[in-house]
Amino acid sequence: MSEHQEQKGSATVSQGDGKPGDAEAQRAWKERLTDLLGPDDRRTNRSGLEVRALYDPNDWDSSRYLEDLGYPGEPPFTRGIHTSMHRGRPWTPRLVVGYGIPEDYNKRMHHLYELGLTGLYVSPCNSHMRGYDPDQVEPVLLGTCGTLIATKEDMDLCLDGLPIDRESVALGDTAPYTLSALMFNVAKDRGIAWRTLAGTSTQSDYLSHCAALGMFFRIPLDAQRRALLDHVTWMNETAPRWNPMSVVGQHYQQAGATPAEAMGFALSAALQHGMDLVDRGADPEAFLARFSFFFDVSLSFFEEVAKFRAGRRVWSRLVRERFGVKSAQAKRLRFHVQTSGADLTRQQPLNNIARVTVQAMAGIFGGLQSLHTDAYDEAICSPTEQSARIAVATQHILRDEAHLADVIDPLGGSYYVERLTDEMEEQILSVIRIVDEAGGMFEAVRDGVVQSMIGRSALQHQRAIDSGEQVVVGLNRYVIPESEDGDEQVLQRPDPERIARYLDRLKHFRETRQQRPVQRALDELARAYESTDQNTYQAVIRAVAAGATHGEICGRVRETVGFGNPPVVV
Amino acid sequence: MSEHQEQKGSATVSQGDGKPGDAEAQRAWKERLTDLLGPDDRRTNRSGLEVRALYDPNDWDSSRYLEDLGYPGEPPFTRGIHTSMHRGRPWTPRLVVGYGIPEDYNKRMHHLYELGLTGLYVSPCNSHMRGYDPDQVEPVLLGTCGTLIATKEDMDLCLDGLPIDRESVALGDTAPYTLSALMFNVAKDRGIAWRTLAGTSTQSDYLSHCAALGMFFRIPLDAQRRALLDHVTWMNETAPRWNPMSVVGQHYQQAGATPAEAMGFALSAALQHGMDLVDRGADPEAFLARFSFFFDVSLSFFEEVAKFRAGRRVWSRLVRERFGVKSAQAKRLRFHVQTSGADLTRQQPLNNIARVTVQAMAGIFGGLQSLHTDAYDEAICSPTEQSARIAVATQHILRDEAHLADVIDPLGGSYYVERLTDEMEEQILSVIRIVDEAGGMFEAVRDGVVQSMIGRSALQHQRAIDSGEQVVVGLNRYVIPESEDGDEQVLQRPDPERIARYLDRLKHFRETRQQRPVQRALDELARAYESTDQNTYQAVIRAVAAGATHGEICGRVRETVGFGNPPVVV
Repeated sequence: MSEHQEQKGSATVSQGDGKPGDAEAQRAWKERLTDLLGPDDRRTNRSGLEVRALYDPNDWDSSRYLEDLGYPGEPPFTRGIHTSMHRGRPWTPRLVVGYGIPEDYNKRMHHLYELGLTGLYVSPCNSHMRGYDPDQVEPVLLGTCGTLIATKEDMDLCLDGLPIDRESVALGDTAPYTLSALMFNVAKDRGIAWRTLAGTSTQSDYLSHCAALGMFFRIPLDAQRRALLDHVTWMNETAPRWNPMSVVGQHYQQAGATPAEAMGFALSAALQHGMDLVDRGADPEAFLARFSFFFDVSLSFFEEVAKFRAGRRVWSRLVRERFGVKSAQAKRLRFHVQTSGADLTRQQPLNNIARVTVQAMAGIFGGLQSLHTDAYDEAICSPTEQSARIAVATQHILRDEAHLADVIDPLGGSYYVERLTDEMEEQILSVIRIVDEAGGMFEAVRDGVVQSMIGRSALQHQRAIDSGEQVVVGLNRYVIPESEDGDEQVLQRPDPERIARYLDRLKHFRETRQQRPVQRALDELARAYESTDQNTYQAVIRAVAAGATHGEICGRVRETVGFGNPPVVV
Repeated sequence: MSEHQEQKGSATVSQGDGKPGDAEAQRAWKERLTDLLGPDDRRTNRSGLEVRALYDPNDWDSSRYLEDLGYPGEPPFTRGIHTSMHRGRPWTPRLVVGYGIPEDYNKRMHHLYELGLTGLYVSPCNSHMRGYDPDQVEPVLLGTCGTLIATKEDMDLCLDGLPIDRESVALGDTAPYTLSALMFNVAKDRGIAWRTLAGTSTQSDYLSHCAALGMFFRIPLDAQRRALLDHVTWMNETAPRWNPMSVVGQHYQQAGATPAEAMGFALSAALQHGMDLVDRGADPEAFLARFSFFFDVSLSFFEEVAKFRAGRRVWSRLVRERFGVKSAQAKRLRFHVQTSGADLTRQQPLNNIARVTVQAMAGIFGGLQSLHTDAYDEAICSPTEQSARIAVATQHILRDEAHLADVIDPLGGSYYVERLTDEMEEQILSVIRIVDEAGGMFEAVRDGVVQSMIGRSALQHQRAIDSGEQVVVGLNRYVIPESEDGDEQVLQRPDPERIARYLDRLKHFRETRQQRPVQRALDELARAYESTDQNTYQAVIRAVAAGATHGEICGRVRETVGFGNPPVVV
C-alpha cells in the first residue's frame, strides 16, 4: 500500500509544453466558474469526499495504469476480477425471493425462471432469521418478508423441480446454518453428491448481523464465531464448490454506514474471518479463493462505481500483505450486489423503478458478479409477481437492450471516476485502520466501535433528509397525497388459510417423525457446542437428517451457549 | 478538421518504458480473452462501429486533451457548452405535454408545474401538424396525441395562468408557424412585450419533417424553406430571446437512422439553414447563436453519450470553417433531448420506466440542455397524469438523488468514451460528406438521398429485432400474455362530450368574429407568399390577430403555393 500512496502526489502533472494538463487553460476556466458559482460552491458525497465541478488530466493521467488499473482478471483487479468480465460472463440476475409458504415460493420461483432469472435464492421468513419455527411466533408476522421454512420437508417443497444440481443456489443462511443443512439433506435425498453442489451462504457473516442488523441476540458473538468457522471448515472439506463465507457489506450500508465505511467494515470483517481460519490452520490460498462478498449499491452513482473499483484494489493488496497469498484466485473480490432498499420510498412506489435502474447501473459499471434488483414495492412488502417481473426485466434491459455487458469497465480512465476511485481507496483504508486499531473486527463489533461509527453516519444522512438538503422525491419534495399517486401499493399478505394449513403440516411433521433420533441428534449438537474440537455444523447436518426443525436446533444451541446480548455501544 | 484527423494515428501510444500502454501486458490479456471468447467475438453498435471488449490508454492518452476536449464553455465544447454546465445550470425538465382540449392541457400543465416541471411545452394534435382545424378531420382522430389548438382563444386557454413572461416556452410549431403566431398574439393581449418572450419553435426544421416524418404534403419543400427563413428573420428582428431555428435530429433517428446518421443529418440541415440565411444577408455570428437542436436519445447508452460529445466538437469546427464565425456563442451546439419512444414497448409498459431512466442518463452524461423523459405509456397513448408524474420524477431522481448534475462531463477521459467519441465523430463527418456530395441537405432531401439511407438503417435494425439478434424484453424475448402483465395500459381517449363542446366553441368563434378583417388578412397572406420580398410570417401573425384559424391559414397557403408532394426516394 505504501508504495502506492507515495505515488499519489505524482498524479498532478504539469507539463512544460502546456499540455495536456495545461495550467493556464485550467486556471482560466476555474476563474470563470468561480465567477458563476461563487467561491463557496462545495459539494460532498455520502462518504464525505468533496465532489468538484470538473476532473481533468491533472486528476488522472494513465501513468499509473499498469500498477493501479491493469488488465481485467489480474491484480489489482480494478477493472474486474475476470479476464472477459461481463462480455464473456454476464452477471447473474439473482432475486431475493421469499414469501408465503414453501409452495408459494416454489410457484413464484418457477415463474421467474421462465422470465429469465437464472440464479436461485431462498430467503427465509424473519422469524427463521431470529431462530424460531413458524409456530413459535405470532401468525401475523409470518410469510410477508420471507418464506416459512422449518423442516427438510419445507425445503424440499421450496426447491421442487428446481435444478439445484446445475444452478448455484444462494441461501440466506445464518448461524447455526440450518438452512444449508436443510438443503444439503434435500440434495442427499435426491441423490445429488454434495461435492457437486454450488452456492453461497449469503448471510453467514455474523459480524455484520451483530453490528448492523441487531441480530446479536440469536446466540452470543463468540458462539457465532465458532459456528461460522465450523461451517466454513465443513463446507471447504465436503462441498468444495460451495461458498460458505459471504462477507456482508450490505448490512452496514443499509444501517446507515457510508459506502466507504461499508466497504471498509466488510473488508475488515473478511480479514477477521481469514485470520480466524488461519488460526485453525486453514490455507489462505484455498479459503480466500472461495470468499464471496455481498454489497449494497445506493443511488450515489459515481461513488458506488468507485467504491467497487477501489474495494477490489484494496482487497487484492491487503490479502497479499496480510496472508501472503500469491494466486490471483485468492486475491479476487467476488461480489453479489443488492440495490439499496434504503433509497426507495413507500410514496409513489413506481418511482422506485427509476431508482433501482440507476443503482443497478452503478453496480454493473462497478463490476459485480451477480445482482439483485429490488422490486418497486420492496419498501413496503415482499414483491408481487408483477413487481418481481419488472425487477428482472430491468436487468435484461440493461444487459440486452442497453448493451452494458459489451465493454469491460467502461468508465475506466474517466478523470472523475479514477480520481474518485483513488479517494475512495484512501477512505476505505482509513476505516480499516480504525478497525485495526480497535483490535480487529471481532473486537470492534464486540466493543461497539463499528456500531457507533454507523450511528454517526446514519444520523448525518437522516439530518440531511430531514433538513431537505438531501432531496427525496415524494418524501420531502414533490410530495402528493398518497391517495392520488395512482401507483399500486398493496401490502400482500399471505392467505391466512394457507398459513394455518402450513402450521398444521408442521405440527403433523413433528408428531409423526421418530422422536428418539431427533433427541439424540440434538444432544449431539449440544455436546458439539460444549466441546472445543467437534464440528458444530456437522452436528446441525445430522440433526436435520434426524428430523429436527430449525427452531429446535436454534433452541438447543441457545440452551447450550446462551442468548446473545447487545454489545455496548461506545 | 484535417489537422485533427492527422493526429488520430498518434492515439496509439507505445512507450519504451513499458507503461502506461504496455504492449506486453495488453497482448497477454488479449490472448487470454481470445482463448475464452474465441477469435470471432465481434459486436457492433447501432452506428455500425465495432465495440471491443476493453479500451485502455492505447485508445486515449490525454495528449490531445486541450485540442479535442478542452474546458467546458470553450471550443470545441466536447465537455459541454457552458462553463458550469449542469453544476450551475441544471438541465430543464421539459415534457411534451399535449392532449385533449385546451382546458385539459392547462389543468395537466398546472399539475406538472406543482410537481417541479419548469419549462413549458405546447404540443398540438396531429391534425394541427397536418395543417387542419379540428373540425376538418374525423372526430375520432382528435386529442389523443396532442392538444386541439386552432384559434387565439384556444392558445389563451392553454396558457391560462402559466408564466409565459418568465418561463421559456417550447412550441411544436411547423411551417407556416401559426402556433407561435397564436402565442405571440396572446402575449400581446396580455401586455407582454415580444422582445421579452423566450422560447423555441421546436418543430421549425422542415427538412427533418419532409425526410423523416412524412410531413412533405403540408406545403411544398421550397415554400417550407421560404416560410422558415421568414420565421427566423422575423423572430431575430422582433423577439431576440426566441429561438426560431430548432434543428431536429430526433425525427431521423425515430424513423430509423442510426445515432451517427441522425447527428450527421441534423448538422447538415443546420448548415443548409445557415447557408440559406447567409444568402439572405443575415449575420452568422448572430443567427447561429440562436440555433438550437433537438435530438433523440436511444438505449444504446455509450453510443449516445459519444454522439452528443462528438456532435458538439464537429459542429463547433464546422461553423468555424464554413461560416468563419469567431464567437463561442455562435459555435455552441445547444440541444433539447427526448428519450426515444422507438425503444419503448407496448408490452409490459412499466418496463419502460427503466428504459427511459437509462436513456435519460445517456442524455445527461452527453451534456443536454433540456430533457423530455417519455412517460411509460407514451408508446400507446398521450401520457396520463400518473405516467407524466413519474416521467418528471425520474428527472428529479437523477438530478437530486443520484446527483448527476454535480460533475461536468463525468465520463470525460474514459478510454472507451473518448475512443467512441472519436469514432462517432468520423462517422458523423462521413454522413455530412455524403450530404455535401448530394448538393447539401435541401437537395439530399428533395432527391430522397436521406430517406433511402434512413430506410436502409431502419430495415437493418428491424431485421435484428425480428431475428432476435437484438433482444427487446417483452417483445421478442421474455414474452408473457399481455393480460397477465398487470401493468396499467389504457389508451385514454378524451371525453367525446368535451370534444363536441370544443367543436361547438370553434364554430361559435368562426361565426361571431368579424369576417371582413379575416378575409383581408388571408388575402395579404396569399400575396406575401406570391411575393418574393414580403415576410410571410408577418402575414401569419396578422392573420391570427384578425381572427383567422390555423386551418384557414394553412388552407390559404396551400391554395397559393400548392400541396407538397412526396419526394422521389432513390
